[in-house]
Amino acid sequence: MDAGLGMTGSLVIAGLGPGDEGLVTPEVTLALAQATDVVGYIPYVARVAPRPGLTLHPSDNRVELDRARAALTMAAAGKRVVIVSSGDPGVFAMASAVFEALEGAPDWHGLDIRVLPGITAMLAAAARAGAPLGHDFCCINLSDNLKPWSVIAARLQAAAAADFAMAFYNPRSASRPQTFADTLDLLRKVCAPERLITFARAVSTAEERIVTVSLAEATPDMADMRTVVIVGNSATRRVGPWVYTPRRAV
Amino acid sequence: MDAGLGMTGSLVIAGLGPGDEGLVTPEVTLALAQATDVVGYIPYVARVAPRPGLTLHPSDNRVELDRARAALTMAAAGKRVVIVSSGDPGVFAMASAVFEALEGAPDWHGLDIRVLPGITAMLAAAARAGAPLGHDFCCINLSDNLKPWSVIAARLQAAAAADFAMAFYNPRSASRPQTFADTLDLLRKVCAPERLITFARAVSTAEERIVTVSLAEATPDMADMRTVVIVGNSATRRVGPWVYTPRRAV
Repeated sequence: MDAGLGMTGSLVIAGLGPGDEGLVTPEVTLALAQATDVVGYIPYVARVAPRPGLTLHPSDNRVELDRARAALTMAAAGKRVVIVSSGDPGVFAMASAVFEALEGAPDWHGLDIRVLPGITAMLAAAARAGAPLGHDFCCINLSDNLKPWSVIAARLQAAAAADFAMAFYNPRSASRPQTFADTLDLLRKVCAPERLITFARAVSTAEERIVTVSLAEATPDMADMRTVVIVGNSATRRVGPWVYTPRRAV
Repeated sequence: MDAGLGMTGSLVIAGLGPGDEGLVTPEVTLALAQATDVVGYIPYVARVAPRPGLTLHPSDNRVELDRARAALTMAAAGKRVVIVSSGDPGVFAMASAVFEALEGAPDWHGLDIRVLPGITAMLAAAARAGAPLGHDFCCINLSDNLKPWSVIAARLQAAAAADFAMAFYNPRSASRPQTFADTLDLLRKVCAPERLITFARAVSTAEERIVTVSLAEATPDMADMRTVVIVGNSATRRVGPWVYTPRRAV
């Protein structure tokens, strides 16, 4: 593109997918090949191969706004910056943080910014399990870092009452082990014990582990921060080794 | 792989993404290169280049179960079959239909079947608009072919009451123009008139058109069958040319 000009900065917010290189889109691969700077959480930046002319800027978790501002500052200075996210950058990842950082900085509103979608964890997990999200579904971040448990609980109740399938991101961490236990307790009050629940850990990586159990059998320790959890709707069922949700409403 | 053996049949259900070849994963490209037979709805099969040794089987819309059975029959006979879907095969596409067809056919349960995820339309659309799905969201198929309006209405009510952002697939067709009009009427009763709604048509193709308006300004004719519609939550807002949903709950 304009690799020879140098002064036309840009910011790309790119999704690397869940881990397998076969799930990285060609559009993202091209953006990384043209980048002067790659910014992101340490394990995601580690997925980008070093090369001459490319500076890697790994940073710790929970510094999303600082990271976004640093990336915008470099783009405004003429760099071709790529922020890497796991999965899709628009699903509980870096895209919202960048627009939040932009909000207080009108000088940056004219920057060349693009969001490049990626394979998000719930869809990679659903594909491995079968088709548990084949009917209407909700996608909920169970982390209570950015919202209170009361909001999460209300959304779980609403989703169950309207018979949505559900996908949960960030179900459980060492610092907040209780949220997912509370989630299972809540679901047990409103869903039948046979409701199917799939725990998909480290999807598409060497450590992948996909387990489907009934809600009655589910325990909090089946999830960690590398797990995406999929709860079927009332019609979700097994066929052979697969789990799927019918296209028809019951 | 086992291209020389021929008798080890397999079925891959692959997502082609929304249209741009830069959004087709390498995993899907490889599966298509190894296929003997490609099955799918006419416009999706038209995206696969003909080559010697590959038979294309385009079929009409609304014959998903017949198509699934035909694909399974060929895989059982030793072919390497790929069913192509637009977007992601697990989101209102062919994966559920295949597992439904499998349900009545235990002889086929041992077949080598894989689902390969793709970039689904709502996430491609969200990326083009900014990050409108950056917080908890629901994904609803507005077609009433496979469920009654009462189910759709209950889900819209629940999603709005719990302040989910929403993505709508198949919002409107010539044969059922009323559903989307009814959807807008329902949303107007429970959401503020300033609520942002994005109409994303033919995302990532030459005909792409992305328009964001307020709920008060939205009209039914802004959507057709090639449109995915994204409704923000109560905090979704504009920043520069972008639309985003903050990571924090309000």
